[in-house]
Amino acid sequence: MSQIPHTSAERPVPTSADVARLAGVSRATVSYVLNGTSAVRISEATRIRVREAADELGYIPHAAARSLRSGSSRMVLLPASPVPVGPLYSRFFNEFQWALRRFDYTVVQYGSLGLSPDEAARAWAELRPVAVVGLGGPQLTAAGIQLLRRSGVKAVITLGPEPVAGAHALAMDHRQVGLCAGAHLLERGRRRIGVVVPREPGLEMFSQPRLAGVRAAVEGSGATVEPLALSYDEESAAALAERWPALGLDAVFAYNDEYAMLLMRALQDRGIDIPGECAVMGADDLLLGRLLRPRLSTVQLDMATGQQLAELVERVVRDPGGEPERHDMMAARAIPRESTQPGRRAPAHT
Amino acid sequence: MSQIPHTSAERPVPTSADVARLAGVSRATVSYVLNGTSAVRISEATRIRVREAADELGYIPHAAARSLRSGSSRMVLLPASPVPVGPLYSRFFNEFQWALRRFDYTVVQYGSLGLSPDEAARAWAELRPVAVVGLGGPQLTAAGIQLLRRSGVKAVITLGPEPVAGAHALAMDHRQVGLCAGAHLLERGRRRIGVVVPREPGLEMFSQPRLAGVRAAVEGSGATVEPLALSYDEESAAALAERWPALGLDAVFAYNDEYAMLLMRALQDRGIDIPGECAVMGADDLLLGRLLRPRLSTVQLDMATGQQLAELVERVVRDPGGEPERHDMMAARAIPRESTQPGRRAPAHT
Repeated sequence: MSQIPHTSAERPVPTSADVARLAGVSRATVSYVLNGTSAVRISEATRIRVREAADELGYIPHAAARSLRSGSSRMVLLPASPVPVGPLYSRFFNEFQWALRRFDYTVVQYGSLGLSPDEAARAWAELRPVAVVGLGGPQLTAAGIQLLRRSGVKAVITLGPEPVAGAHALAMDHRQVGLCAGAHLLERGRRRIGVVVPREPGLEMFSQPRLAGVRAAVEGSGATVEPLALSYDEESAAALAERWPALGLDAVFAYNDEYAMLLMRALQDRGIDIPGECAVMGADDLLLGRLLRPRLSTVQLDMATGQQLAELVERVVRDPGGEPERHDMMAARAIPRESTQPGRRAPAHT
Repeated sequence: MSQIPHTSAERPVPTSADVARLAGVSRATVSYVLNGTSAVRISEATRIRVREAADELGYIPHAAARSLRSGSSRMVLLPASPVPVGPLYSRFFNEFQWALRRFDYTVVQYGSLGLSPDEAARAWAELRPVAVVGLGGPQLTAAGIQLLRRSGVKAVITLGPEPVAGAHALAMDHRQVGLCAGAHLLERGRRRIGVVVPREPGLEMFSQPRLAGVRAAVEGSGATVEPLALSYDEESAAALAERWPALGLDAVFAYNDEYAMLLMRALQDRGIDIPGECAVMGADDLLLGRLLRPRLSTVQLDMATGQQLAELVERVVRDPGGEPERHDMMAARAIPRESTQPGRRAPAHT
């Protein structure tokens, strides 16, 4: 245990009333000076006196009070995602933050675990953000959006398959991912396609539309689609590989590259030839998938850039009365590699 | 472009003064009722009138104003990390959020990109959190901590190799990771050890102590340590593999499992036998490392649980005057697998 001198927490927190008293001015004057309201004329001598008093006391204005008085905050609130985020999203999110920063916004991610959508909207509204961008966390309802707008939020942007009344919509249609994968496997002559559906909670919002996309891709072709539950561990993959011969599949779209790497290894360990007996396809185009032998075919997701989303935020904040817009956030395309090559029999692995 | 009816943003945001007017009471009374101050007696009839007026107007109290009046907020502020976080941290962080939620705290992650440590501390203080837990983002200074304490923050907890005056310290000593890896490779008879230092910005805070740990582990043994710059892409790995024979190394600690997988593939593609000619070791114990052949040896990091950290926050908030504490967040241990086996020559891969 180290011995570090520390500031006592018992000293009372200085308020604007303390600053007013020390500077010999009214609380309103303190507020005008420190919150930068330009509408009121205050002499330079008074401004200096107030700032010196604030410094002496260590007074810090409230962000929310300041935003109320100056008419707008520069806080962009993002509900934090309770689902672990992958490297693709991580990169997008950093870029988004930097771009907002260049517009002089501050990003706050709000943890809303265990809150209903409307409770969450109320909690967010209490922080008086100027924009709410729902990339994760509880799905906003029309009522929640109205509540946010009433609290002064100028831009509400939601992400999801369907727009919500009162908000601008970012569409991120994961059916596209399944459509690409299904079309690619069909084109490679595969007819009995397994689709991995991860058992891990929170992934249904991605896995269900991906499955639906594969079904849509094969519709009318005579090919069949078989959902396959899989947990992200070696035991579950080994158990699925054990059942493989009985399933009679000649291809599998494995949800993403990580599940594909897990399942491909288990299939290879059972002596199943990839892609000869079964084609394997992932999604995300991770570097690690390119390191496998056979190299993993995948679906590449192109997300809108963080810069584009930041520009949308800035535009809507400046013109909050415009018609709700809808933007596509994601494009998908198949990247064929060795693991889905037609008529190829790889040499057996040791 | 879809046509969605939306709430006009032009209607003015209702204030507590509007609520007071509608309810026929003072602003102070509105504040007492809506912010739940129990120190003042207010009749039930008045309380109902105020709540009805607030509902009718759609008034939402300010979080910061409420925290000021009720004497404490339940917001725990975490500076958001600008570095992409891995699955290990992601899991820890979710657990931490859930645990804080059970203590009725709300977690806010604050993006502080481009702010100096003291600017960041000021911005955080403006939100009036009850606790600041610096797991990422700008490193707090003693001055920043004092400023936070003065604004009413009861618990300041920093993460890093060294404690900062005025705050409780979480130690996450990445030298431990290098020490484990170095000791394991020595024990396996390796004498010329390469250590991967990623070129990606932001990772120095992990890679430098890991390198120092390997150096400390081999000190006095006669073994040598060679830092190896590597970018996370196939070209960089191929270029390093090309130089490999000239380097004369018999082992490499590759920073983490992902860099290890990348480098091991490049070495295998150059016909270098792993572990016969060179042992390869990662860190993080990712599932994917177990899928490689040879299976990847690694250093497992055991982080303190999110529950333990949440309990520390709660304890310090309840007793903010206590002596600063120091806690170890991480323990490391080697997990030997095939890629560092002594005297083993794996069959060549195709």
